[in-house]
Amino acid sequence: MDLPKQITFKEVGPRDGLQNESRFVPTEKKVEWIDLLSQTGVSYIEVSSFVHPKWIPALADAEEVFNQIKRNQDVTYAALVPNIKGAERALKVDADEFAVFMSASETHNQKNINKSITETYDVLKEVVNEASSSNKKTRGYVSTVFGCPYDGHIAIDEVKKVCDQLLSMGIYEISLGDTIGIGNPKQVKSVMTELHKEFGIGKFALHFHDTRGMALANALAGLQAGVTIYDGSIGGLGGCPYAKGASGNVASEDLLFMLHEMGMNSEIDVHKLLKAASYIEGVFGETLPSHQLKLFEGG
Amino acid sequence: MDLPKQITFKEVGPRDGLQNESRFVPTEKKVEWIDLLSQTGVSYIEVSSFVHPKWIPALADAEEVFNQIKRNQDVTYAALVPNIKGAERALKVDADEFAVFMSASETHNQKNINKSITETYDVLKEVVNEASSSNKKTRGYVSTVFGCPYDGHIAIDEVKKVCDQLLSMGIYEISLGDTIGIGNPKQVKSVMTELHKEFGIGKFALHFHDTRGMALANALAGLQAGVTIYDGSIGGLGGCPYAKGASGNVASEDLLFMLHEMGMNSEIDVHKLLKAASYIEGVFGETLPSHQLKLFEGG
Repeated sequence: MDLPKQITFKEVGPRDGLQNESRFVPTEKKVEWIDLLSQTGVSYIEVSSFVHPKWIPALADAEEVFNQIKRNQDVTYAALVPNIKGAERALKVDADEFAVFMSASETHNQKNINKSITETYDVLKEVVNEASSSNKKTRGYVSTVFGCPYDGHIAIDEVKKVCDQLLSMGIYEISLGDTIGIGNPKQVKSVMTELHKEFGIGKFALHFHDTRGMALANALAGLQAGVTIYDGSIGGLGGCPYAKGASGNVASEDLLFMLHEMGMNSEIDVHKLLKAASYIEGVFGETLPSHQLKLFEGG
Repeated sequence: MDLPKQITFKEVGPRDGLQNESRFVPTEKKVEWIDLLSQTGVSYIEVSSFVHPKWIPALADAEEVFNQIKRNQDVTYAALVPNIKGAERALKVDADEFAVFMSASETHNQKNINKSITETYDVLKEVVNEASSSNKKTRGYVSTVFGCPYDGHIAIDEVKKVCDQLLSMGIYEISLGDTIGIGNPKQVKSVMTELHKEFGIGKFALHFHDTRGMALANALAGLQAGVTIYDGSIGGLGGCPYAKGASGNVASEDLLFMLHEMGMNSEIDVHKLLKAASYIEGVFGETLPSHQLKLFEGG
């Protein structure tokens, strides 16, 4: 089995894992949690979101969190930024890196951002320019790449168009999201082969949700297609716990365990990651979806 | 991605899914459940076990279940048989096929069967002979192929030795079990490549547990190694629900959904399978591990 040796892992739990939570995690607990994550060997943590608190009340304390975390020089502390207003807030707290987002499907983009795909580009361009004028990089998230709850299957040409626009505006890396966990390994292999042919290897990350249990199989397909960058959310946090069956991001510890077992290197200490997962599980007081966490004895 | 077109799926839920349950599912519920399974397109159902009821009280009604189910001519109704006594009981109720079991690891075999691996062969041989004298076939389960809770990693030569013995005594197919869900896709590919080299393709099935969330990734690796026969347990039933983190077999509906999405054919109707899963979930009155079942709206 031909697999890459070195993996880059990006932890999105503090932002993507919490953003749909109806319960507000107190700022000091978020800070303590992110500080634990900073000690695991992870090189990228998405700390919070500068989307207006009206839309994401769970992350209304983005400034406070950024100001209170202990920064580890080896970690990039990123912020989700929807528009120029968000960019200004993120700059004020000196987020190391920005992340912007949109969808590959017209309907999902409209429902999520309240703009057409074409209208969205200008908004993101402003953010990217604001970031680069402060010498900061911008990452891009593209949702519903492997299927949309409204538009169903997304043609590869639509995905290519969006990626082309994002890369052209100076986004350094695109994280392709399987937002509803409907993608299958054969599809992942085929989509990634097409995108690599068009844009080259190394510009794409994969961001899987485990709604149908296929996240690790999809990651395997991604590895076989040469993708070396993966997102995950500690504990498997994320998704909407109040929608029937909606489940979270792939659990960071489950993904990394599998990669390490196959001899790949990520520089991350899964045991320390599990301590951080256990911490946030304690805050919520209920069992998170992660498999590894169920086996974890603490300590 | 090079994948087989046609898959054979074997449903082991009524036996493997229930055997560790401390709660006794009433016989008439088992029968109703198996009758639902018989209408899904599944060609093999492992109905029960003729292990002494002292060891598996949950399946103490094996005879009654076999006698009361409505047999579908397109389904093979198999029974787990530990020894000649079990074989006689299974013959009396006319089980279509026998299944025997042992471990690839010495310690697990000793703890599970109370015999050494070498001593076990003679016991199984008696069962196979008893079956074939009644024109019945015998399937073999080998546990802990991908790792043992006591002995750790199992050398491929040990696995080969056991397979060689089982095939030599006339067992038509060996189901290789990842009993504690510790196997990884790279390992699955490598083990299956070795076994196919030694014994040819088509003699092996894969039987995964989802303890660490790797079951579907491992199935993908199995498919890529040319394995076309997979076991599953509806709802993800199985394992020991009272041991921390021990989780069940891969859920039949999760596995089949992924295979179908990748264009493979199993002749099985996943919607009907979900009705049967929903039925047994109702009997237990608690959420089963299956992902698809969480999305199922019934009807």
